[in-house]
Amino acid sequence: MRIVDIREVSVPLEGNIANAVVSFAEHDVSLVAVESDVIRNGRPVTGYGFDSIGRFAQGGILRARIIPRLRAADPASLLDESGLRFDPGKVYAAAMRNEKPGGHGDRAAAVGALELAIWDLNAKLADVPAHVLIARHFGRAPQSQSADVYAAGGYYYPPGSGRTLRDEFAAYRDMGFTGFKMKIGGASLARDLERIEEALGVAGSGAGLAVDANGRFGLDTALAYAEAIKGYGLRWYEEIGDPLDFDLNRRVAEVYDGPIATGENLFSLADAVNLARYGGMRPGRDIFQMDAGLSYGLTEYARMIDMLEANGFDRRSAHPHGGHLINLHIVVGLELGGCEAYPGVFQPFGGYAPSCALGGGQVRPSDAPGFGLEEKPELRNAIARLAN
Amino acid sequence: MRIVDIREVSVPLEGNIANAVVSFAEHDVSLVAVESDVIRNGRPVTGYGFDSIGRFAQGGILRARIIPRLRAADPASLLDESGLRFDPGKVYAAAMRNEKPGGHGDRAAAVGALELAIWDLNAKLADVPAHVLIARHFGRAPQSQSADVYAAGGYYYPPGSGRTLRDEFAAYRDMGFTGFKMKIGGASLARDLERIEEALGVAGSGAGLAVDANGRFGLDTALAYAEAIKGYGLRWYEEIGDPLDFDLNRRVAEVYDGPIATGENLFSLADAVNLARYGGMRPGRDIFQMDAGLSYGLTEYARMIDMLEANGFDRRSAHPHGGHLINLHIVVGLELGGCEAYPGVFQPFGGYAPSCALGGGQVRPSDAPGFGLEEKPELRNAIARLAN
Repeated sequence: MRIVDIREVSVPLEGNIANAVVSFAEHDVSLVAVESDVIRNGRPVTGYGFDSIGRFAQGGILRARIIPRLRAADPASLLDESGLRFDPGKVYAAAMRNEKPGGHGDRAAAVGALELAIWDLNAKLADVPAHVLIARHFGRAPQSQSADVYAAGGYYYPPGSGRTLRDEFAAYRDMGFTGFKMKIGGASLARDLERIEEALGVAGSGAGLAVDANGRFGLDTALAYAEAIKGYGLRWYEEIGDPLDFDLNRRVAEVYDGPIATGENLFSLADAVNLARYGGMRPGRDIFQMDAGLSYGLTEYARMIDMLEANGFDRRSAHPHGGHLINLHIVVGLELGGCEAYPGVFQPFGGYAPSCALGGGQVRPSDAPGFGLEEKPELRNAIARLAN
Repeated sequence: MRIVDIREVSVPLEGNIANAVVSFAEHDVSLVAVESDVIRNGRPVTGYGFDSIGRFAQGGILRARIIPRLRAADPASLLDESGLRFDPGKVYAAAMRNEKPGGHGDRAAAVGALELAIWDLNAKLADVPAHVLIARHFGRAPQSQSADVYAAGGYYYPPGSGRTLRDEFAAYRDMGFTGFKMKIGGASLARDLERIEEALGVAGSGAGLAVDANGRFGLDTALAYAEAIKGYGLRWYEEIGDPLDFDLNRRVAEVYDGPIATGENLFSLADAVNLARYGGMRPGRDIFQMDAGLSYGLTEYARMIDMLEANGFDRRSAHPHGGHLINLHIVVGLELGGCEAYPGVFQPFGGYAPSCALGGGQVRPSDAPGFGLEEKPELRNAIARLAN
């Protein structure tokens, strides 16, 4: 068994929205196809993966460095001991040949897209949903359960724009969501508190509402917000300062009793170790949001989960960033805390397929083999671009 | 005044050598040209920069993200207050529009190559060597002095290969070098100690010899080497463990009295802050090796130097990674500790121009405007590829 071809396309994200720091209008995503020489129903079994949502496609690194290394590798060196599956860890190592330690940025997304396509391919070879393959691979019992999911968004609406935060969250509630996340830091603290009150009108209580500063705050602002919001009992206070400012996170954690969530902009085990060492994260309370697609794929991500458990954190404290099918399967397969969703935006990658049951704040993967990306109508055109 | 065109080429590094972790045979470098609309002697004044040595060209990120943002920027928004120079900080900010915090890897090199070309362009517009422009920009008195330089290399030679480490270092000594750096960690500790003894035969004393583990060691090996080499009084013990394993660095620093050097694989101010906070680095003793070309350019690098000074470190504790003309000008302009050189390898970028006086362990920039890359014969073909 061998890889016959690896293809990639850059797919622009649709939707023109802004968080506190960046506009997503120019963001795109690398979608990767790994075609095997196994033929079923007259077609080669092919795995698809992508590098998650919210940063950039990595076609340059994939074409210049990663794909040529996989093409040059001995095909047998990429298989597991059975010879019936590709070994994601060996593929990861081959993709990283001659890369230096450190510098976990764009490269981590390029490798992530490829490595996740291997998981999709293996699940299709085994004819099981990816979450079943993932559970078995890591020695866990496959789950049939749903994952907790919450609706993220909570954008800024200028007064008189004809739409409100309350309207936005009410629409999510009508879709079946019971938890919500909103942006903060794009307006004054006083205005953000008004918006939190408005959102609580839909969420019902703080337990159903998280707030996300998108890494915007310096220490003084971080502490001022912490003091101002502490009475709401919010679900969590997310990405308060620069993702590498572990000291800021620690200092907020020392005075803010509610849960803190962070990690979506850490792209390696080494960075996640430093968050656990220096960030003041509290077992049983705080939330880790690292994302396999931006972090070299599931092999590296699973090492992060092992590291968290070794440091006293429960795997249910992991809520991966990026609301999409790949992370749904990872959450169910590894029995993590839950998923996010960004209803209506970040298409064609964001959200779930119609065959995934959504309701009561839960989402359930379908029985499609692999990640089931082919079941998502919005992805049809992008996948068609990868046809041989 | 405006930028008329930005061009980039990927230039392979020549030389087939291996450090403890990676082969450099496949590494390449992005060389960037920024052409202005200022015409002198019938030709547009053009700045050149590159992203240093030892990692990869970043043509994909430059073409997909960085160069389009500069093209889209209002030309006046890229000038300093005088209107006579481009503002490197504004160029840096424009290059990073819509980029998220964190993930300081390949992107940092792409931006670095471009931002350094702006410094070369500004120096040519002012008709001064880049080190003079750099000194003035940061409010320092321009220096005419040389910089300390040492010869790095110290590779592994199989017995019977017909060449030895002693031969290699003797050749560097004959070129005018008085300080040397060798690889460790590619053989057993016992074998590396023999090699250190062999190198000391040329270096004369430990003060002239540094050892570089290239981030290879885990804690046990790091401590075993520290114990074994402590009696030599070596110049420094470099990049002992993973560049992000600040705790390992701290634990070695607690027991190893000699200088420790690290930082070449940290690519942002945020990462350098964490090294200063958590790495156990000792003011007056340890060495920082961050490299502007891999770290968003000189604007970000100068912020790192300010940060080091604010934390009690002397700017002479900075010895940038990457032995080449750009870092020579930065070292002289900012009065840093010194440069490295890799004689004979990493061509066409490595080393200095014939017009740079080298001798007595010192190297002096020439009077050419800018970084003087045009004076380096090995670079002629690469620069010619960037001609309009």
